[in-house]
Amino acid sequence: MIHLRRQLPYRPTERMNVVSYPIRDIVMEAKREEAKGKKMIYLNIGDPPQYGFEPFRVIADQVKVALAENWKGYAPSEGDEEFRNTVAKIEKCKPEDVFAVAGLTEGIDFFFHSFIGFGEKVLLPNPVYPLYLSKAKQFEGDSVFYRHDADGQIDVANLSKKIEGAKAMVIINPNNPLGSLYSEKNLAEVVKLCSEYDVPIFYDGSYDRLILEGKPVDFRKIARGKVPFIYGSSLSKDFSYTGARIGWVAFHGERWAEVKNAFFLLCNQRLSVNWEYQKAAAVAMVHPSYPAYIADMNRKLIERRNTFIKMAGKLPLSFPVPKGAFYAFIRIESQKWRKDLQFVRAALKEGVVFVPGSGFGRQEDGVYFRSTFLPEPHIIEEAFSKIKRLL
Amino acid sequence: MIHLRRQLPYRPTERMNVVSYPIRDIVMEAKREEAKGKKMIYLNIGDPPQYGFEPFRVIADQVKVALAENWKGYAPSEGDEEFRNTVAKIEKCKPEDVFAVAGLTEGIDFFFHSFIGFGEKVLLPNPVYPLYLSKAKQFEGDSVFYRHDADGQIDVANLSKKIEGAKAMVIINPNNPLGSLYSEKNLAEVVKLCSEYDVPIFYDGSYDRLILEGKPVDFRKIARGKVPFIYGSSLSKDFSYTGARIGWVAFHGERWAEVKNAFFLLCNQRLSVNWEYQKAAAVAMVHPSYPAYIADMNRKLIERRNTFIKMAGKLPLSFPVPKGAFYAFIRIESQKWRKDLQFVRAALKEGVVFVPGSGFGRQEDGVYFRSTFLPEPHIIEEAFSKIKRLL
Amino acid sequence: MIHLRRQLPYRPTERMNVVSYPIRDIVMEAKREEAKGKKMIYLNIGDPPQYGFEPFRVIADQVKVALAENWKGYAPSEGDEEFRNTVAKIEKCKPEDVFAVAGLTEGIDFFFHSFIGFGEKVLLPNPVYPLYLSKAKQFEGDSVFYRHDADGQIDVANLSKKIEGAKAMVIINPNNPLGSLYSEKNLAEVVKLCSEYDVPIFYDGSYDRLILEGKPVDFRKIARGKVPFIYGSSLSKDFSYTGARIGWVAFHGERWAEVKNAFFLLCNQRLSVNWEYQKAAAVAMVHPSYPAYIADMNRKLIERRNTFIKMAGKLPLSFPVPKGAFYAFIRIESQKWRKDLQFVRAALKEGVVFVPGSGFGRQEDGVYFRSTFLPEPHIIEEAFSKIKRLL
Amino acid sequence: MIHLRRQLPYRPTERMNVVSYPIRDIVMEAKREEAKGKKMIYLNIGDPPQYGFEPFRVIADQVKVALAENWKGYAPSEGDEEFRNTVAKIEKCKPEDVFAVAGLTEGIDFFFHSFIGFGEKVLLPNPVYPLYLSKAKQFEGDSVFYRHDADGQIDVANLSKKIEGAKAMVIINPNNPLGSLYSEKNLAEVVKLCSEYDVPIFYDGSYDRLILEGKPVDFRKIARGKVPFIYGSSLSKDFSYTGARIGWVAFHGERWAEVKNAFFLLCNQRLSVNWEYQKAAAVAMVHPSYPAYIADMNRKLIERRNTFIKMAGKLPLSFPVPKGAFYAFIRIESQKWRKDLQFVRAALKEGVVFVPGSGFGRQEDGVYFRSTFLPEPHIIEEAFSKIKRLL
Repeated sequence: MIHLRRQLPYRPTERMNVVSYPIRDIVMEAKREEAKGKKMIYLNIGDPPQYGFEPFRVIADQVKVALAENWKGYAPSEGDEEFRNTVAKIEKCKPEDVFAVAGLTEGIDFFFHSFIGFGEKVLLPNPVYPLYLSKAKQFEGDSVFYRHDADGQIDVANLSKKIEGAKAMVIINPNNPLGSLYSEKNLAEVVKLCSEYDVPIFYDGSYDRLILEGKPVDFRKIARGKVPFIYGSSLSKDFSYTGARIGWVAFHGERWAEVKNAFFLLCNQRLSVNWEYQKAAAVAMVHPSYPAYIADMNRKLIERRNTFIKMAGKLPLSFPVPKGAFYAFIRIESQKWRKDLQFVRAALKEGVVFVPGSGFGRQEDGVYFRSTFLPEPHIIEEAFSKIKRLL
Repeated sequence: MIHLRRQLPYRPTERMNVVSYPIRDIVMEAKREEAKGKKMIYLNIGDPPQYGFEPFRVIADQVKVALAENWKGYAPSEGDEEFRNTVAKIEKCKPEDVFAVAGLTEGIDFFFHSFIGFGEKVLLPNPVYPLYLSKAKQFEGDSVFYRHDADGQIDVANLSKKIEGAKAMVIINPNNPLGSLYSEKNLAEVVKLCSEYDVPIFYDGSYDRLILEGKPVDFRKIARGKVPFIYGSSLSKDFSYTGARIGWVAFHGERWAEVKNAFFLLCNQRLSVNWEYQKAAAVAMVHPSYPAYIADMNRKLIERRNTFIKMAGKLPLSFPVPKGAFYAFIRIESQKWRKDLQFVRAALKEGVVFVPGSGFGRQEDGVYFRSTFLPEPHIIEEAFSKIKRLL
Repeated sequence: MIHLRRQLPYRPTERMNVVSYPIRDIVMEAKREEAKGKKMIYLNIGDPPQYGFEPFRVIADQVKVALAENWKGYAPSEGDEEFRNTVAKIEKCKPEDVFAVAGLTEGIDFFFHSFIGFGEKVLLPNPVYPLYLSKAKQFEGDSVFYRHDADGQIDVANLSKKIEGAKAMVIINPNNPLGSLYSEKNLAEVVKLCSEYDVPIFYDGSYDRLILEGKPVDFRKIARGKVPFIYGSSLSKDFSYTGARIGWVAFHGERWAEVKNAFFLLCNQRLSVNWEYQKAAAVAMVHPSYPAYIADMNRKLIERRNTFIKMAGKLPLSFPVPKGAFYAFIRIESQKWRKDLQFVRAALKEGVVFVPGSGFGRQEDGVYFRSTFLPEPHIIEEAFSKIKRLL
Repeated sequence: MIHLRRQLPYRPTERMNVVSYPIRDIVMEAKREEAKGKKMIYLNIGDPPQYGFEPFRVIADQVKVALAENWKGYAPSEGDEEFRNTVAKIEKCKPEDVFAVAGLTEGIDFFFHSFIGFGEKVLLPNPVYPLYLSKAKQFEGDSVFYRHDADGQIDVANLSKKIEGAKAMVIINPNNPLGSLYSEKNLAEVVKLCSEYDVPIFYDGSYDRLILEGKPVDFRKIARGKVPFIYGSSLSKDFSYTGARIGWVAFHGERWAEVKNAFFLLCNQRLSVNWEYQKAAAVAMVHPSYPAYIADMNRKLIERRNTFIKMAGKLPLSFPVPKGAFYAFIRIESQKWRKDLQFVRAALKEGVVFVPGSGFGRQEDGVYFRSTFLPEPHIIEEAFSKIKRLL
């Protein structure tokens, strides 16, 4: 028997069945095309530095400062003290309510690990950032999906049918992949419902400074005192520093003591997050030059979005107008494509990389894909010219 | 019903039952003592920079270089190309066999996640670094423990009774918490056994440059071609840069294709490891000044170890002479203490922080604790003077 | 801490989150009404003996014969030899392919336990018998639901969009709760699809002799040689002996060797099924008097169904005409009810017990309930007269 | 890809890794020997009817009575009312505290399913009836084993080191496989410890009427009011009716409300236990002729045990004198065998079937096997004559 086993490759575990990451998985196919000499336009991944967006410079400057000082041991597991103080100011909470994480990715993992038990219902948006799908499965939660209206707002009537008995609700705003910005009114209705049904909220504010249209909302103000919530964000998008791997979660409300202790244990287990970057973030996040930085970034994003809308408008494609973040979640209105993956592969052959809509949850009513509009206008134009014959 | 639930604090999941990290958990108690004004000597945690060991300077220098360049987006999930090339040279494997991880902590998580299935037997040393205990439980493996002899070598006869049917064996060398350095002969016997029973090895070489006595061993040479293995290490200990959160795993042997793909998916899911530090590591790990750096570090460690042994020798304590890393796993030979936690708490009241032996697995035959000998000799002397009356 | 815990009731495990059985759960509420003196008509549970259907008499006679003989030890775990031989004749398979189970309930548990791994996709009908929902959750499968057309046939187009990558497909025919009988043509299309995508089938034939209209189908003939399948049935419904707790699963096709071994281990673990009832079933299932028995039962069921249809036809209710089993899955066409549980509770106050449609899976497009039509016509008429004012 | 998969046999799930049943698994090997014409003596399985012990006749008589009456539908999930009343009298609890189960096997499954959460510590005896090992693994509990002294009593000192933080403790008395009968004094000490540490008890009384030596103990009297407990037993051993598949669990103490509800849900899910056998048990268990029946059975068992001890005494074998049940757990004192499975296989070649000791948990200190002494004295003598040359 041993002899036979020797012939065989090792097998991964069953758990790997639920680990996939469609946003990057498609890249492997793209790389193969590129290796053949084809030039590819990558509209699949939300990585601003790749498209000419400079990270907020203060971070790098402050990392250098920290390197010169004595921050090379393990940082406190739960986060550097200055970092937590800075976040606490932003969040209007106590420093003890803040945890530093290696990108919000880690915060999402800790949230499911510590709070969503076997078979417990967690409300997710549909469409949803894929990591939430994977983590809900890995940690054996029962994902129930709420819908959006045509404008990309949360469909509160739909939510109200599904909310009863939920352990928690996830909100991503501005939404990835929809690019929609939930309005204050929309969020207030959701908070009211969560309060009635006693459902706490995990709020993913990764893109909360990237507002392209409409009035910025501060969820913390809307929800504070009404429903317990966890607010998470990071340096990745709002500061265009995806490679820093620094984020946070902040607990709001009175009932989190045991869950915070669980976060603390999970933090302990992975020891620490890079210390110099925490020190840098502690300064950069409240630096006086940030408002000008983000205004400039949003200005560029608006321009690129407008080009994107203009180009897409000429094709049988529909999507809510993106008002935040830098994505559009697009429905193909022509009947040429029955499966999203077929379309995405065809686009890839033309030199444009998208993410199939099914990567963001089951889309029953049509064929969808996600595109970023991060590149410069002329590249967006080029991408559309390459794919237009497919639609 | 909703009304009643409102009164209650939120409850963490059952999974949290298996998450604990005794090395840091004890710190919370220590901090409370410190807050009362007591001066504490922390011998619980293996964090060289805390004890005056400077990280290898080239890393910080190279981070600055990288900050000046364009490495601020997501790094490739599986690791920066230069980083993988450098590791491949060290490992004598192909760059495709290397994965960058956020400290070996993450590599250990990925190993269990992808390779140890429900109920599959994994051989762990006893005593063992606590993360292995937690991860085996989290991923529902069946931990079976092999013993050490009085010199801290793997007890091959004991191992031979337990190896049949194991999915994998974990080796930590130099061993944490034992401080022992398995000899070439010992490892060759283990490799032979693993080869006979077709059991691949996860080799944790976190401390493989910290050799205080005896001949350094290169496990890769011993095992290559005989048994498939995964070699993991990091910048944390060998380069005294615990806060960098950069490590790697390298796959050796022909049967790992599907497991490597699983690692790739797990890497994708968490997006990336800090890019500038990878760039820095790619240069620093093969820098010509490293041999002098590590020789100096080992020289200091030997001195501190010798003080430690001298001081411990005056008390009813026994342990294998540490020949690697910077720990001793100590058995209390007096009959004064029936539970390790009682002793550790008593020591804490005297101002010295240890880790109870039970944190490293069930110790059936006595009362144990782990101490590091990282501090300067006079501090080690002070620590022993504080606790001697307890023994 | 111990002192505080003493005050608290013990808590069940998180796993209990996924255990519910809506068909019986509603009974507890009904019993409370009954205790107050209200007469209840139970249309919630498919238990023929409760409604005057005599179990096939040969079984009881043969149990007595077996009691006089020597069958009181543990039966062979996998099933009594004669029982397996009889089933093998019915199934046209080998006796070794047959396992005796304590009702098909146990067979379904074993199927999920042994075959649906973590995160593996299993295709379930919607609506579906609730046990499949619970077991898929307990064993961490990924339930994906296929739809039915207005006639209660499998919607093959819908299935074709979801089948790719499924580990197995569950078919219940005649369907519980729909009461529909999939036609030979419908099943042949499904088998073709499963064959193309290499998806084996678990076929629940619990009601396969209860055919009220249309041509009986033998799935085994349709599928044999085309796709591997497991056929399960029992004495509960086809022989009206729900309390016997005797059923079977039979494996068809060449690729089941390891799964059959897994079933064997699960059988071993629970030791045995009641031996005398297996002996009795071995004789009764092929007894010459059975055809007359089942013809009479079906005749009565048709009569009751017809009454049911007539009464329901006067109300704003719609459902596929039941052609098998003894259930109807009914959509409320009036706008008076927004939640099925509200309607079911209102009916309960009137003295009629139904099962809410949500117990059979999420019904997104309307408000449903399941009713059996097992009772005598005058009771069915009485039930409708009680509830008509609610609609 | 589909094409390739077609070639492959289906794979069972990872969960099957933890399902094994050593008592019956060895039988498969024995059957192969038997098929070659060798006569086998089966000392592996505790099935009294196989060895000439007649089941308590009243049961079969009462099944016939029940068959003539109207008990052929689903019985109430939680158990027939009369059955629960009878058990309640035996248990001195309320009928609502009693659940009917399909053999205590099912009760053990329900106990772990509902009460031992992920990673929760459950204290098991070592050696232990194998089902407890499997269920603890299936339901992801953390099994911690307590030892016995040379007389087969619970080693309370050992237990006291391990009890802290346990969710529950399992006691099997008379013990399978040890055959020991814990004394009132021993149990009182255990109860005191459990009370101090607030650890409830699952008491497996499957053999509680089979007392061969010493004073019978009634655990309920010892524990009542001191510690919450669950008492389980069945018809299998005490009534020699292994094939009946009827048992019960009874909850004692004030804190079980939620766990009882969980049991109720699990009962609902599997619908019912055979109704006629419950009716029969309700009468038989309190029938006036039972005391004579059990006295006769114990008299025979004592005779067989004495022969067993006499024969074993001539060989290098040691074990606590069995004072209950019908097993001995035997240590091989000669140095001829290093692995229990080797010895068991050698015995099998000689025509005698035992169970290897490792099936009852890890035995670190020697080589063990379990034998029943159910057969008539001359068969026991024959068995020893066959194996004596192996020792």
